[in-house]
Amino acid sequence: MFDRNLFHDLPAELPSELTDILVENRYVRIERIVSTGHASPEGFWYDQDQAEWVVLLTGAARLLMEGESEPIFLKPGDHLLIPAHRKHRVEWTSPQEATVWLAVFFCDSA
Amino acid sequence: MFDRNLFHDLPAELPSELTDILVENRYVRIERIVSTGHASPEGFWYDQDQAEWVVLLTGAARLLMEGESEPIFLKPGDHLLIPAHRKHRVEWTSPQEATVWLAVFFCDSA
Repeated sequence: MFDRNLFHDLPAELPSELTDILVENRYVRIERIVSTGHASPEGFWYDQDQAEWVVLLTGAARLLMEGESEPIFLKPGDHLLIPAHRKHRVEWTSPQEATVWLAVFFCDSA
Repeated sequence: MFDRNLFHDLPAELPSELTDILVENRYVRIERIVSTGHASPEGFWYDQDQAEWVVLLTGAARLLMEGESEPIFLKPGDHLLIPAHRKHRVEWTSPQEATVWLAVFFCDSA
């Protein structure tokens, strides 16, 4: 019954962002994402078919929404809802510690 | 665009468990739940139509699943999946600090 801990199994070295799928079915997908200094590639924008609710749990990040001039700075506990097809990119994550995100992707229709 | 912080707005005194709905549509409901020493009433069992993925973010709790002899002790980061209609109750939460849970309820059918 008892599953896992979001803050365990954080690799000491992380060549690229690490994504673990915690729950997945046709309605919802819950992911733990770990970044250590990683950012979206230059010019890359996420453009997702599903809505995403995301919370930053440890570390720090800057998230840029398309059309905004300034990124959003996220600290632990900060959460936001990204509608489907709202383009966004991760400009920066802290290089000094693991940034742990929890993301819930879900169908957006009313 | 930027919403809120899960660890802000924690009441100093909490007469009963506090639930904030962060996202809700027909497929998914995301809740922040704050407990400070609260437990399920004697003899009460949660029996939910939807599956629930839950993570404890701060504090500590003991969760009992029906049919198990021992509760599960949860510390920050611990998460588990509770299938629909799997009866469970909160036996105990820490009286000394806010226990913040994040719960994602979703349709369970394949």
